Amino acid sequence: MPYINCDMGESFGLYKLGDDESIMPYITHANVACGMHASDPNHMEKTVILAKKHGVHVGAHFSLPDLQGFGRREMVISREELTNFILYQVGALSAFVKKHGMQLSHLKPHGALYGMAARQPDAAMAVIDVAQLYQLPVYGMRGSVQDTLAKQHDVPFVAEFFADLDYDANAGLIISKQHLPADLGEISAKVKQAVVNGRVKTVQGSFIKVQADTICVHSDTPNAAQLVKQVAQELLQLKISRVAGEA
Amino acid sequence: MPYINCDMGESFGLYKLGDDESIMPYITHANVACGMHASDPNHMEKTVILAKKHGVHVGAHFSLPDLQGFGRREMVISREELTNFILYQVGALSAFVKKHGMQLSHLKPHGALYGMAARQPDAAMAVIDVAQLYQLPVYGMRGSVQDTLAKQHDVPFVAEFFADLDYDANAGLIISKQHLPADLGEISAKVKQAVVNGRVKTVQGSFIKVQADTICVHSDTPNAAQLVKQVAQELLQLKISRVAGEA
Amino acid sequence: MPYINCDMGESFGLYKLGDDESIMPYITHANVACGMHASDPNHMEKTVILAKKHGVHVGAHFSLPDLQGFGRREMVISREELTNFILYQVGALSAFVKKHGMQLSHLKPHGALYGMAARQPDAAMAVIDVAQLYQLPVYGMRGSVQDTLAKQHDVPFVAEFFADLDYDANAGLIISKQHLPADLGEISAKVKQAVVNGRVKTVQGSFIKVQADTICVHSDTPNAAQLVKQVAQELLQLKISRVAGEA
Amino acid sequence: MPYINCDMGESFGLYKLGDDESIMPYITHANVACGMHASDPNHMEKTVILAKKHGVHVGAHFSLPDLQGFGRREMVISREELTNFILYQVGALSAFVKKHGMQLSHLKPHGALYGMAARQPDAAMAVIDVAQLYQLPVYGMRGSVQDTLAKQHDVPFVAEFFADLDYDANAGLIISKQHLPADLGEISAKVKQAVVNGRVKTVQGSFIKVQADTICVHSDTPNAAQLVKQVAQELLQLKISRVAGEA
Repeated sequence: MPYINCDMGESFGLYKLGDDESIMPYITHANVACGMHASDPNHMEKTVILAKKHGVHVGAHFSLPDLQGFGRREMVISREELTNFILYQVGALSAFVKKHGMQLSHLKPHGALYGMAARQPDAAMAVIDVAQLYQLPVYGMRGSVQDTLAKQHDVPFVAEFFADLDYDANAGLIISKQHLPADLGEISAKVKQAVVNGRVKTVQGSFIKVQADTICVHSDTPNAAQLVKQVAQELLQLKISRVAGEA
Repeated sequence: MPYINCDMGESFGLYKLGDDESIMPYITHANVACGMHASDPNHMEKTVILAKKHGVHVGAHFSLPDLQGFGRREMVISREELTNFILYQVGALSAFVKKHGMQLSHLKPHGALYGMAARQPDAAMAVIDVAQLYQLPVYGMRGSVQDTLAKQHDVPFVAEFFADLDYDANAGLIISKQHLPADLGEISAKVKQAVVNGRVKTVQGSFIKVQADTICVHSDTPNAAQLVKQVAQELLQLKISRVAGEA
Repeated sequence: MPYINCDMGESFGLYKLGDDESIMPYITHANVACGMHASDPNHMEKTVILAKKHGVHVGAHFSLPDLQGFGRREMVISREELTNFILYQVGALSAFVKKHGMQLSHLKPHGALYGMAARQPDAAMAVIDVAQLYQLPVYGMRGSVQDTLAKQHDVPFVAEFFADLDYDANAGLIISKQHLPADLGEISAKVKQAVVNGRVKTVQGSFIKVQADTICVHSDTPNAAQLVKQVAQELLQLKISRVAGEA
Repeated sequence: MPYINCDMGESFGLYKLGDDESIMPYITHANVACGMHASDPNHMEKTVILAKKHGVHVGAHFSLPDLQGFGRREMVISREELTNFILYQVGALSAFVKKHGMQLSHLKPHGALYGMAARQPDAAMAVIDVAQLYQLPVYGMRGSVQDTLAKQHDVPFVAEFFADLDYDANAGLIISKQHLPADLGEISAKVKQAVVNGRVKTVQGSFIKVQADTICVHSDTPNAAQLVKQVAQELLQLKISRVAGEA
């Protein structure tokens, strides 16, 4: 089964978000929330256990400190401070991974930080600093500032293709606050197109080049479990083996 | 210089607590706050750097989740949940220690959790579970539940003597919300008594047995820097070398 | 329609808890979360608007400061400090109520604080202090410490009957972490029994006296919306008018 | 004594910030922190009591939700959401004011929000919406977006002059992370210049027009207590009575 990643463990306290139990069997890499946009120590433990059960790699899915806003509020923060916040979260997750005899597999910024790391050199470097320390690959968008800087600093960069987001003509993602239920057939075709031909149809109707080292599916897309299963099957049919990279 | 430990890095954001710069040169082991009763990623980074500069060992000083109450509110929490909260904090600190090429040296619960681990088997076991995972010694009071359980689980236990707290006839500590300025001569005599003779005079006037593998000084005692310097000199004069234990 | 109260507005950020939209039409009084065990300013605004739309009274549902634990962790806290925490929450909710031209109707402690106020005079008095300031009635259990102290301080006390919890022979409530789906017929009979005859069958099989000034239904009981509708209809058939009290 | 305002009650839990006891006797209006950038229910109670003791008016000093960053991180937030966060804080403070038989006197945004309200219409309107609801004047900078919008919505606007900050030629404030100790004579002359002549010398050496309905002194300026005393005396000598406005 080729690479599929999904944000996992985004519940908090009594609050449940995402159907992790149904999704985990079909993905290869779990981006596990670290307590700053979602999750808490109990859910981190539970999520790492679930990932291990299904042989899924565990990466750190860290964010800006913003639990109420689910890490979606962009904020002004220095590179040094951001590095410290990322270190804190990666370290916290490493304890649960260590407990279960596993190792962290990758780093992926969450929400507003994902966008900041794609565009702002300081934010990108904060992620890269931690990647170098932990010797881990970073997930992000091909062609982003983060991609360029990762290359310059010899940090492996894994290009994501978003199965459940639309692209615009500038290779930007159309992000909605609430993801709509996905049309499975459409998604399947889109993933095949991206993986085999390296291109995607934009909302404007044109085609742009994309790279799909790993397919990202959002766990809060309403039919995420079906969607991720569909993507996994599509990739299996394409007989695409694991792509370059981390594990 | 023999063992002296002190809670360090208890500032938060703009808020400053404790004169870490003045105290760090005189201690051997820093109990570094991990963000749940005090500190944040920035202060953790700063504190680990300061400890490294002075050749001071870094231990994790974790607590119940209670920033507003400085971890001093006892609360009802299960062993499993507590273990997860401790793992989270120890892991978070481990990232900063890793960054600076150091290793964690010990574990010490903070505030209300210190008392809970001394009296409640579940709380003690949560600490011990994490100590086993990280193969680290635990700080606490000789004769406590935590001491007994650590022995049973082959976890090294380091007995603390509190230089700036009074003891009662039941070997209990008299804890005040605000520590009073310490009388240096009195403290010196008290530490000497504890280290050389293994006993301390209680507030009732009687003497009780104590064990002093490490001397604890509180950073929020008003003249903490002078106090810790005094204790360090007293121990030097006693020509007491490092005691049993971890590093 | 007689009194029915339900905890409302317990969502937080992106996290949704309880089917407020379906429940609100059938209740008379909403206990609105104030941000310390659940909710945030956005959900408070939304919940007050929903309550107003359905002509439902808004009371403050305040708790210990414990978002991660949903206010279910009992903790040690002084009367003065607790009074301040309650004041803060009641005041915060009062702003949203004021915005929509409404007035607060009652006070109801949440979770661990509900139990503490029922048993501990200091906790009960913290609630009563705020009730006196705002001249509001307090919800709680008949025969509790809070009930007794409310009477002594001339604070109106509204006795709750819990439709979806079991009682033991000591009039204690059997509280489970996850409420089970309710049997509607059983609940209906139980409510009728409590309202008409003032008694409830305990889990031990015996009957105890209860008082039901208001019927409480938990919004996180799986079929809460059906349940509250059923209770509302049962009360209508009994032709029970609004009971003594606040509005 | 003419108007002098100062941020008060910015301590948090065990952490102390600002010498409120020494400053309160010399100011007319206290901007009291509401728990989102600083303070907590205990410090709010304490601060309102201190203000009342000295006959000082209490205004709400609200901020973005950012305790760790002391409300100094600018963030992206919608007008609706911001209004809710401000309502929450103003309401919370109103409870303490009510308890002590006082009334809120004014609104003043804190930190990053102060700057946002000065420049961004949405942020300004969030403040103005709450000002209209509570019928309170708003503090800010003359000529700011907030000033203009307040006028348009008939909300009284009180122009601040900052005694301990430098101005640049564009009437911008030079804000440093740590305020330097103030030169009292210099400040005195500067305040006199602003109040009598309505102008201030910029860091570039030129003079710009300023309006000083109220003089703001920062409580975290190292010698804030002396400074505020000096400003109070200067204003007394100028025999300037209370300016237009709120109380």
